[in-house]
Amino acid sequence: MSSHASEVPLIHDVLAGSPSNWGKWGEDDEVGALNYLGVDQVLCGIGLVRQGKVFTLQAQMGHPHGDLMAPTRRPGQRFMYLDQGSWAGDKAPNIPGGPRYADDYIMTFLQASTQYDALGHFWYDDRIYNGYDAATTIGGLSKASVLPIAERGVVGRGVLIDMARYRGKQYLDRDEGFSHEDLLAAAESQGATIEHRDILLVRTGWFEFFYTVPTSEFYGDFREPGLVYSPELIRWFQEMEIPNLVTDTVGNELSSDPATGAEGLLHCALMRNLGVAFTEICDLGKLATDCADDGQWEFLYVAAPLKVVNGTGSPVNPVVVK
Amino acid sequence: MSSHASEVPLIHDVLAGSPSNWGKWGEDDEVGALNYLGVDQVLCGIGLVRQGKVFTLQAQMGHPHGDLMAPTRRPGQRFMYLDQGSWAGDKAPNIPGGPRYADDYIMTFLQASTQYDALGHFWYDDRIYNGYDAATTIGGLSKASVLPIAERGVVGRGVLIDMARYRGKQYLDRDEGFSHEDLLAAAESQGATIEHRDILLVRTGWFEFFYTVPTSEFYGDFREPGLVYSPELIRWFQEMEIPNLVTDTVGNELSSDPATGAEGLLHCALMRNLGVAFTEICDLGKLATDCADDGQWEFLYVAAPLKVVNGTGSPVNPVVVK
Amino acid sequence: MSSHASEVPLIHDVLAGSPSNWGKWGEDDEVGALNYLGVDQVLCGIGLVRQGKVFTLQAQMGHPHGDLMAPTRRPGQRFMYLDQGSWAGDKAPNIPGGPRYADDYIMTFLQASTQYDALGHFWYDDRIYNGYDAATTIGGLSKASVLPIAERGVVGRGVLIDMARYRGKQYLDRDEGFSHEDLLAAAESQGATIEHRDILLVRTGWFEFFYTVPTSEFYGDFREPGLVYSPELIRWFQEMEIPNLVTDTVGNELSSDPATGAEGLLHCALMRNLGVAFTEICDLGKLATDCADDGQWEFLYVAAPLKVVNGTGSPVNPVVVK
Amino acid sequence: MSSHASEVPLIHDVLAGSPSNWGKWGEDDEVGALNYLGVDQVLCGIGLVRQGKVFTLQAQMGHPHGDLMAPTRRPGQRFMYLDQGSWAGDKAPNIPGGPRYADDYIMTFLQASTQYDALGHFWYDDRIYNGYDAATTIGGLSKASVLPIAERGVVGRGVLIDMARYRGKQYLDRDEGFSHEDLLAAAESQGATIEHRDILLVRTGWFEFFYTVPTSEFYGDFREPGLVYSPELIRWFQEMEIPNLVTDTVGNELSSDPATGAEGLLHCALMRNLGVAFTEICDLGKLATDCADDGQWEFLYVAAPLKVVNGTGSPVNPVVVK
Repeated sequence: MSSHASEVPLIHDVLAGSPSNWGKWGEDDEVGALNYLGVDQVLCGIGLVRQGKVFTLQAQMGHPHGDLMAPTRRPGQRFMYLDQGSWAGDKAPNIPGGPRYADDYIMTFLQASTQYDALGHFWYDDRIYNGYDAATTIGGLSKASVLPIAERGVVGRGVLIDMARYRGKQYLDRDEGFSHEDLLAAAESQGATIEHRDILLVRTGWFEFFYTVPTSEFYGDFREPGLVYSPELIRWFQEMEIPNLVTDTVGNELSSDPATGAEGLLHCALMRNLGVAFTEICDLGKLATDCADDGQWEFLYVAAPLKVVNGTGSPVNPVVVK
Repeated sequence: MSSHASEVPLIHDVLAGSPSNWGKWGEDDEVGALNYLGVDQVLCGIGLVRQGKVFTLQAQMGHPHGDLMAPTRRPGQRFMYLDQGSWAGDKAPNIPGGPRYADDYIMTFLQASTQYDALGHFWYDDRIYNGYDAATTIGGLSKASVLPIAERGVVGRGVLIDMARYRGKQYLDRDEGFSHEDLLAAAESQGATIEHRDILLVRTGWFEFFYTVPTSEFYGDFREPGLVYSPELIRWFQEMEIPNLVTDTVGNELSSDPATGAEGLLHCALMRNLGVAFTEICDLGKLATDCADDGQWEFLYVAAPLKVVNGTGSPVNPVVVK
Repeated sequence: MSSHASEVPLIHDVLAGSPSNWGKWGEDDEVGALNYLGVDQVLCGIGLVRQGKVFTLQAQMGHPHGDLMAPTRRPGQRFMYLDQGSWAGDKAPNIPGGPRYADDYIMTFLQASTQYDALGHFWYDDRIYNGYDAATTIGGLSKASVLPIAERGVVGRGVLIDMARYRGKQYLDRDEGFSHEDLLAAAESQGATIEHRDILLVRTGWFEFFYTVPTSEFYGDFREPGLVYSPELIRWFQEMEIPNLVTDTVGNELSSDPATGAEGLLHCALMRNLGVAFTEICDLGKLATDCADDGQWEFLYVAAPLKVVNGTGSPVNPVVVK
Repeated sequence: MSSHASEVPLIHDVLAGSPSNWGKWGEDDEVGALNYLGVDQVLCGIGLVRQGKVFTLQAQMGHPHGDLMAPTRRPGQRFMYLDQGSWAGDKAPNIPGGPRYADDYIMTFLQASTQYDALGHFWYDDRIYNGYDAATTIGGLSKASVLPIAERGVVGRGVLIDMARYRGKQYLDRDEGFSHEDLLAAAESQGATIEHRDILLVRTGWFEFFYTVPTSEFYGDFREPGLVYSPELIRWFQEMEIPNLVTDTVGNELSSDPATGAEGLLHCALMRNLGVAFTEICDLGKLATDCADDGQWEFLYVAAPLKVVNGTGSPVNPVVVK
């Protein structure tokens, strides 16, 4: 985080007049813009499947290189509870018939690995999405947790925009920003269109970059590329009724807003105000290569985070079918 | 487990001559019968979607009633790392612009909640699926872990068989068994057919039963209903090329084989020998009600467990689309 | 907790006028009545050692019967990271010269097992010991954590009062209370005296009781025996300058005050107001038997909880030397 | 670990003929050389207390700089379960009378922080201390775990040898070794004597060094100073009947034996063969300064690790009284 936090304007002021979907789907709503994904969108996504190709988008958990995550979090750990070695000792179960099994245990931040943010994960002015009191986050999210998203599931038409490819790079640079107009230009260059209510997948190459450098170098200067806040960008998301923003970065936006120095502006303007679901740290590399190969950038997108009661988020392994 | 383990015949003997798929998909294969789910099966599943209805099948993690799991495991725990209460103290981050967020951490058995078993999760005779040495499980599954299943994803045509409904019960009794012929009869009564390479979902009602009784009563006499081992059953799975068995019980089979007293016979005969993927502890209640209502018991099934490197299994939130 | 919390008077009112040591040892003090344990008390404890007998007072962590703790907490878990079985696989380290080792990991509430409470662990009226704002507990105790107690260590003259023995019981009954006058009478019957600045150990037998009944029975009716609040009791602790109360119960006091229904009254009056250190869930059985045998109820007491930065408490294994 | 493990002679060969105490205290013994600490040693330690000064030797757990530990392990984590912030939400308990409390949870390697090794923690030739089969370590130490050490407690005469001070350094260099003759010379220069059955504390300054450099620099070249293996050293420990070796390094010995390249030679020769208890990562700085000031290098040493059933070791906060 910046060392000059006090000189940065309040997000309350930066986002004054920014559009809001609070109340749009009822005062009890907890899934926000995912409400856009009705029967039509499901069938629209289904209709895009022609080849029977399947892609999974999660980052590996426990990768030998280390796991990409926000530097404020710590890597998970996995412990064995039973394995073949256990039966050389005296504490393994003696199961009738003699079979054996392996069992293990994991400890992880829920916001590590590829993950859905709960809509109540990020806020300002003591209110989370839909106006719920931020005090509802205390001890676990009583409102707008990841549970309603997981109960609903996310199924619709996805479109991939490959910003790295568009700019002729393996991966965007640190702090390299782009706007919705850049997204549209990239889509056009791909021969793709971003439709209303599309699940929007954006590739920066940052995910692959992580695995190419030592983690100390990566985290030593953690300034991600990403979408840049502007009032126009927010209105575009609102008009396009984008239900879900899916990227290959940790934060789904520039680490720091270049105009104001504020952090998390898109989390506030899109997620907290509009209810756009955020899916982060997605592995979009293989999918992008395939889309460039066959020229089909639109597909069925299916994702369902874990049903963690009161959870602030959950790891997820999204599936794309073309 | 039975207290008479020594009187029970070895699974090695019980399953002598039982069919095997080892080597069928190459000596490096780690996903077994999921190989049946090729492009045709994906498109077949897609073709079943007509209404745009979405169902998610995971059990909630951290349900107030407690979480259904094998009594040998322990409930997970979730801890908050940050929430709105943190900013009343002196240790919360001061983020430029003033936003706040909630963050949490989870600890859980990987085989708790709705989950995919890795094919190497269960074995006998010191060999796991495809003949890999069971020593490869030590410290984590080097072979046939849940990772290859998660990398592949599971997409195909699913069919639900509601054994509880077929037998006119809310849920099957403790130790109540059924055969593949029962499955076929139930399918017929539903007006459904089990096709080759179908992902087979079987409902016993046991999942709902868990939530209706105190956990002490439930676990005090833990004898699940389920499929009963027979050589014919195994041959039927083999001939039908079933890629994935999905049920609403912890074990996907009777807790103890009535003929021999052996435990885990189907894990051995289906998962270890044939490479059939096991998905356990699924919430099939709402789906079953809907299928009974609209008479459509076949659907698109999409599931992708987490990409846990070396994992014995992973929680999963399967999605059904009709 | 009682279901009639709203009818119970506020501890603020119950303890109006109750004595306080806030400020007595400076506004920066974080160890309270342990300040009474100066050089004289150390030497006094040392002077009681005549036989060279050693006792350790901690409860076992991971006892097969289960671990005694407050029902609001959950048992810890221990996982192996490496053991002899690991070297039958491919993931154990190859150490030059060929040695091997076993390594493990523990997860536990800090207030489970025998433990020192931090002075800031319990409070009312938004102030913890010495008047620090209770907001200092947020995210970890910035003030009056267990760390200063652990840095200081606790060394002095201990005296054991065996209330169970005095009342001719193996263990006191649920909800059975006793006063400081009962302590004095028990001491007299033992031929012992409670001196100024003594570390006070009180045995109820509750610790042994835990291991004699099924845990479901034990926790099904969790009403501990213990000291009963009275203004006279608090004044007696204050006049006697008791630095540390050590018992074999989870709460060091009656679970519910019989006069008011309030819970934690002694935590408030003794720990929060007077700064008396609380040590709970001690195994006093063997020590009590020995004291009854040799008639020596006074001894050197040495304890040092773990130096957990910001910790609310810590497991500890107190040592008694006679 | 060295990358040339295969060229290093086996510890089996290096230690051929090295003395052993297996069976000396019975075939059921699990505490080894701690048996030397009988009544006489307890009283001898007590007799050294003249000033009433108390020192605690544990490293802080959760220090802002990071926690000193073997690079093969990972830092522990502590999570809040309840604190003052919890009562601004809706999930905190409503305790009759209105008190509040803070509660937390810790996850840590048992061999992190200042710790006692179980005698069964380290071995070669498939046998741990006293000849127990190394298979007894599987799933937890059934034999020679830290539990018997914790049940016994460690009380006796301690003597501190300050090698850093003796060599005129703040801390010894990486890989800097010393022998028992160096210990004796240092003792003489201090005006101290190492007596039979003394608990031997050795300061290298390495503990302080850890806190003076960035952790990346510290772990980037992890070669500790320490005692160097020689047959004479082992015989000296045996003849002196040293029950417990306590140092301020992670390994209590040179990271790699300069003569052979073997690692863990002293763990094998002293702990596994002779049953000498190892206490590692002790903070000896303040104690050393005080001893240099008052010229008293001998004292009462009292330590009791936690009673972790089957544990490979345990954090501990040793207490020294002068």
